[in-house]
Amino acid sequence: MRTGSCVAKLSGGDPSLLRRLNIAAVLRTLYDADEPTLTELVKWSEVSRATVEEIIADLEHQGLAEEVRLPPDAPRRVGRPAKRYRFRQDAGHVAGLDVGPHKVLCLVADLRGEIVASARADVGPHMSAAERLDVARDMVERATEGHDELRALGVGTTGVISAGKVVRSERLPDWQGLDLAAKLGAGRPYPVLAGNDTKLAALAEHWRGAARDVDDVVYLLVGRSISLGLLIGGKLHLGHNGGAGEIGVLRDLGWYTALDRMPAFGEDDPDAASDGEAAKRVFDAVRCGDPRAEAVVTAFVADLATGVAATVLTVDPQLVVIGGGLSQAGALLAEPLHAELNRLCLFPVQVEASVLGDESVALGAVRLALDRVQAELFDVAEAAGGQAPDRA
Amino acid sequence: MRTGSCVAKLSGGDPSLLRRLNIAAVLRTLYDADEPTLTELVKWSEVSRATVEEIIADLEHQGLAEEVRLPPDAPRRVGRPAKRYRFRQDAGHVAGLDVGPHKVLCLVADLRGEIVASARADVGPHMSAAERLDVARDMVERATEGHDELRALGVGTTGVISAGKVVRSERLPDWQGLDLAAKLGAGRPYPVLAGNDTKLAALAEHWRGAARDVDDVVYLLVGRSISLGLLIGGKLHLGHNGGAGEIGVLRDLGWYTALDRMPAFGEDDPDAASDGEAAKRVFDAVRCGDPRAEAVVTAFVADLATGVAATVLTVDPQLVVIGGGLSQAGALLAEPLHAELNRLCLFPVQVEASVLGDESVALGAVRLALDRVQAELFDVAEAAGGQAPDRA
Repeated sequence: MRTGSCVAKLSGGDPSLLRRLNIAAVLRTLYDADEPTLTELVKWSEVSRATVEEIIADLEHQGLAEEVRLPPDAPRRVGRPAKRYRFRQDAGHVAGLDVGPHKVLCLVADLRGEIVASARADVGPHMSAAERLDVARDMVERATEGHDELRALGVGTTGVISAGKVVRSERLPDWQGLDLAAKLGAGRPYPVLAGNDTKLAALAEHWRGAARDVDDVVYLLVGRSISLGLLIGGKLHLGHNGGAGEIGVLRDLGWYTALDRMPAFGEDDPDAASDGEAAKRVFDAVRCGDPRAEAVVTAFVADLATGVAATVLTVDPQLVVIGGGLSQAGALLAEPLHAELNRLCLFPVQVEASVLGDESVALGAVRLALDRVQAELFDVAEAAGGQAPDRA
Repeated sequence: MRTGSCVAKLSGGDPSLLRRLNIAAVLRTLYDADEPTLTELVKWSEVSRATVEEIIADLEHQGLAEEVRLPPDAPRRVGRPAKRYRFRQDAGHVAGLDVGPHKVLCLVADLRGEIVASARADVGPHMSAAERLDVARDMVERATEGHDELRALGVGTTGVISAGKVVRSERLPDWQGLDLAAKLGAGRPYPVLAGNDTKLAALAEHWRGAARDVDDVVYLLVGRSISLGLLIGGKLHLGHNGGAGEIGVLRDLGWYTALDRMPAFGEDDPDAASDGEAAKRVFDAVRCGDPRAEAVVTAFVADLATGVAATVLTVDPQLVVIGGGLSQAGALLAEPLHAELNRLCLFPVQVEASVLGDESVALGAVRLALDRVQAELFDVAEAAGGQAPDRA
């Protein structure tokens, strides 16, 4: 709409570009407005009536727009009521894939981001890259079955991801150097965008979680591993090499010892337990007032806090979100961490546990895919280069 | 110019706003272009010829624009040459003030940021806030003497600065809680914008120093104290409380011990030596191959590196700039720090010593003041609220 007209002003009058800009402006208005009339579309899109009429006809033909049919029992008004139009959010779909050491999860959403289907498989950390990719492709196939036209696929996985490649992976050594986007995109008609799991989870938190409407956020993914994602000015901060938030590699910080504390509380093989199971045992015991479990949590928080404090002192965020398996502990983890951060940092910072559960990475991947599709539909100017995954 | 026309499109046709937008568009074009003709101004500003003629007349009247007079010995061309115009950068001035524990420095610049005057005084860390403020006012008076119309004053000082106030000051306890902007702005016709010294030095580095054209930068101010400023996406990152970069308060990082190493090398009273003097002795000795001095530098870099690595791993910048008194050590400090960071971090990061010397804070304060003035002149839309110092 307004953006449209601005860009039009900048287009230097290339007719085909101008045409695309007008389509984008009308489509954006249709998407944002609540079943507008033609007159409203003209007013809000700042495109001439004749052009809007043409474009709406095209969009209906493409299946992106439809006329709103009044229900038969709608009250009859005097005279012919103005036609109203709506954006067809089911005109296409996007998928978000979480490919982790322990699970593969695919969520499918319509063009408004409403989740319409999902498929999930448990996997093991020692599976080969080829096998893991097969499971991933299979989950996408199952989840998208019966949902027309997949327009983009977002993928979140562990490690440092840059331009769709796994530049570095500590948890899945077999993953290192893998061109994930290319592997999953081969022979597919839709673009595949890959990003780091923690960063995508942070994106999800900003979209639909604890960080909604908060611009500067430190997101902690705490499960079998501990990692960190930054939202700065409401945008993911990825860093020059896509490695922002990788503070955990500093051994002095104690994040490595932290990781052993929860599983150590139970006796079974840590690797056998899925993310958060070991922690669940600890926090269940805390709820029953088990002092041994309380000591584990205290030590865990102490290990965790220095690294988080270093990040909080560096970025000075408004909010720290705890996501991942341990988010289920809620206040039992958030409160002691909050106290420790206030002791170590200059300014008090909110600490909240995520409520998105273990779907946050896949949900962030949906958002990544949706950003690309919306950029193509609405932002002709920017869409030139599209939205690179490591620019998410 | 183009921005102008966009904003105009968005102004919803408020005539006075539209008028201001056109003035801004013409002025911006005049500022950016090299002595444009009227025809060029019309073309580039996208404002009608009649309006441009009016506006230029107004601007000449205000002293912001002038016709370029050809030198008498200029080659005569056939026919009457088209008039050319230029922005009068001497139509006003801005000042940048560095109020530190050991010095007060004021730089004065014209509207293009060319430094035209300066005044400097050495002060002591134990001076009272009132005395320090008097010296500051005095330096502004001296530096601006004979330079008409001060349009904005930027001030950089130690501590956490938020909305013009010193929220927290470790080095100048007397400073804490001081409304610096109000104290220096009282009874003055120009706005006063205050910011943290390190953050302003980082801004200066991005404007005219080692960080030019680099968007993600970690700036280290290393002198009698160690502090840190972040540039993210080419903008200063200030943080929710204006406290971004304050990682140094984590005692475990060893920045406190680092600070004692340089002065300890000389025998005199650390406080007596101005920032960098103690370090100068050490690095002079290193140049002479003194193994004791080399050991001091090695230990200093080890102390420094963990905290810097934590920040580099969090932000993943392209460049680390060493500023402050120790920047004079150049490669003698940059190279060992570079080696240590590459050992601790995931990705290699450039490390460069600042070449702005000890004027960097004042220069950043000039940039802060200039941003405000340019926003008023060129960005009618944004200028509404002006550019808050803690949004710099």
